[in-house]
Amino acid sequence: MDQIDYAGRLRRVQTVLGERASLGQPRIFLVTDPVSIRWTTGFGGSSAWLVIADSFAAFGTDGRYLERVEAEFALSGLDEFLEVCGASTRAEMDDQMFARLGGSGHDLAVGCSAAQVTHSRWSEIASKVCLVDEVDPVIHLRRRKDPAEIQRIERAASIADQALAETLGLLTTAVLPTEMEFRTEIEYRMRQLGADGPSYDTIVACGPDHAARPHHEATRRQMKVGETLVIDVGALVDGYHSDMTRSFVLGEPTQHQRDLYDFLAEVQAAGLAVAGPGVMACEVDAACRKMVTEHGLADWYLHSTGHGVGLVIHENPFSAPRSSDELEVGDVVTVEPGLYRAGFGGLRIEDLLLITEHGHRILTHTSKDSPCLPSPPTI
Amino acid sequence: MDQIDYAGRLRRVQTVLGERASLGQPRIFLVTDPVSIRWTTGFGGSSAWLVIADSFAAFGTDGRYLERVEAEFALSGLDEFLEVCGASTRAEMDDQMFARLGGSGHDLAVGCSAAQVTHSRWSEIASKVCLVDEVDPVIHLRRRKDPAEIQRIERAASIADQALAETLGLLTTAVLPTEMEFRTEIEYRMRQLGADGPSYDTIVACGPDHAARPHHEATRRQMKVGETLVIDVGALVDGYHSDMTRSFVLGEPTQHQRDLYDFLAEVQAAGLAVAGPGVMACEVDAACRKMVTEHGLADWYLHSTGHGVGLVIHENPFSAPRSSDELEVGDVVTVEPGLYRAGFGGLRIEDLLLITEHGHRILTHTSKDSPCLPSPPTI
Repeated sequence: MDQIDYAGRLRRVQTVLGERASLGQPRIFLVTDPVSIRWTTGFGGSSAWLVIADSFAAFGTDGRYLERVEAEFALSGLDEFLEVCGASTRAEMDDQMFARLGGSGHDLAVGCSAAQVTHSRWSEIASKVCLVDEVDPVIHLRRRKDPAEIQRIERAASIADQALAETLGLLTTAVLPTEMEFRTEIEYRMRQLGADGPSYDTIVACGPDHAARPHHEATRRQMKVGETLVIDVGALVDGYHSDMTRSFVLGEPTQHQRDLYDFLAEVQAAGLAVAGPGVMACEVDAACRKMVTEHGLADWYLHSTGHGVGLVIHENPFSAPRSSDELEVGDVVTVEPGLYRAGFGGLRIEDLLLITEHGHRILTHTSKDSPCLPSPPTI
Repeated sequence: MDQIDYAGRLRRVQTVLGERASLGQPRIFLVTDPVSIRWTTGFGGSSAWLVIADSFAAFGTDGRYLERVEAEFALSGLDEFLEVCGASTRAEMDDQMFARLGGSGHDLAVGCSAAQVTHSRWSEIASKVCLVDEVDPVIHLRRRKDPAEIQRIERAASIADQALAETLGLLTTAVLPTEMEFRTEIEYRMRQLGADGPSYDTIVACGPDHAARPHHEATRRQMKVGETLVIDVGALVDGYHSDMTRSFVLGEPTQHQRDLYDFLAEVQAAGLAVAGPGVMACEVDAACRKMVTEHGLADWYLHSTGHGVGLVIHENPFSAPRSSDELEVGDVVTVEPGLYRAGFGGLRIEDLLLITEHGHRILTHTSKDSPCLPSPPTI
């Protein structure tokens, strides 16, 4: 896979800060979101700070990570542009941070996102410098995926496709698995296929109650013939996530199950038909929600229709009724309408797509033609 | 396993709030830490608020979780003591929350932990009620483990012991695995043995560079005979974590490797010897750190010596030099000194222990007698 150009990313953040400075906003930004730190530097640990100004940048971490960070930054060439500070305690880390912020004092304006830092941490830092609530410049930069990122997401999606194909056989055996057993096998298979892990806890939700819960956690309950089954699975490749859901009926579906599945497939197709550059993300939601409401199933529709995917599994843009996000070329988003009702169970169909100049390209390729799985043999 | 008494836990939080109210502190607390919400209610999802007063309690979540929550609270009997509010948007959830907080107004004092909420969320809520930074009452209550929790942690530790025993054979085969392959197999085995998953990303760190990093992430690098290998593994059972590290030398150790291992085993034993009720956690750290420093290895000692373990993998009490925590009966803590040096690699020995009335009981049982693994056969 192509290398990610971290030095280039850092320069892009600095360009944004230069532009902000010319508007009178702080020229220094304290990045506190671990995902933004990862996007800018590749550092995936849990304890770090990153100070970026239009003309310099510094990164601090504790002793557990220091040796690794120095090796990784040397490898990516980031060490030429980013000063690394190590410390053995939180207090030392803070001292280093304030030193790099340019000393302290309330005439020193530093940007920081109030949504990405605890109130107590904000108060501590604001007692030494003039902290200004500013949007994290990385959030917008990281939304549009570059070719190296699309490679990773596409590889993750392909691993999930293949792992699902190779695991579905468990659902046609005489003894059906429990939800957890199925999850264990598909996640193991994704790793064997080269994933760093699952993108999130694989959702395996089966039966009249569990499948009716959009975010069900897999249990030790055994699956039964005749039940609906929702499998929401993604792989993780080099920090990047994929996301896909397919739904099934174990054995021969009833007419009602089949009708609802076919209807949901049309709803999902309607959502996909809308998704493209320049479209408001809420329109994708509206396209699906309108059909479901007109079908009299409004109270079966429990969540919004999609979200962005990248270094985190849920990120901008969000296809929700009140979203003000506009889809852009380079966005990687889900379209995932679902129908849920206790007693019936649930169905969800979710694809992951890349917004392109001419519309979109679907990254998840598992068939969604039919909910049918061959019936398990009679014991 | 024994049921967890959630209704009893809620009453204990309410008792603390009653005591606070009599001291003039707010009688209402807004719990924002997901782990505290889980401890009090069993809810493990990502989107919820919990308002507790000395005489009532209310819980809010969004449509994705509502049906599951109602079923679970009915099962645990919590539904008798906790009002459940569902909402389909964040704004609706907020409206419900302010209604349950007792309307709004700046004469309504509500406690909330500033360390457990973002600055932007704090500012939003503080614009409607008088928010007071108070310690989350659950943090202290959840530190001392009850028998049902100890059962779960002990089961998790036992699963990790068994999975490690059954996976070590991979290290004596002619073709040694990569770090990731070993991680994949041990995590798969833990799940097959009944774990809900790994307690954290299993650390498999091998060789002169990787083993020198305390928090190394497993890579696709193949292990080599003669290298040090650090395996830090735990299982997750019903939300509860275990934590254990063992270190090895692949094949016959050199005298230097063996000497350092034997020394580290003495250091760890010295830490264990100190651990008991009424002891300051920093004394456990000091006992280990002193020996390492006297041995001239101070700069090989990169992290503090231990931490509490429960619903999160790192929680109070912390065995660090500046810790003011005192060990109490019911604490579950690690003792995990390590030695790290690029070029040499690393060694860490970590046990999980329960602090008891008479000292402690070790919950991790994998042998730590020797770093030796049988040499792989020559190909």
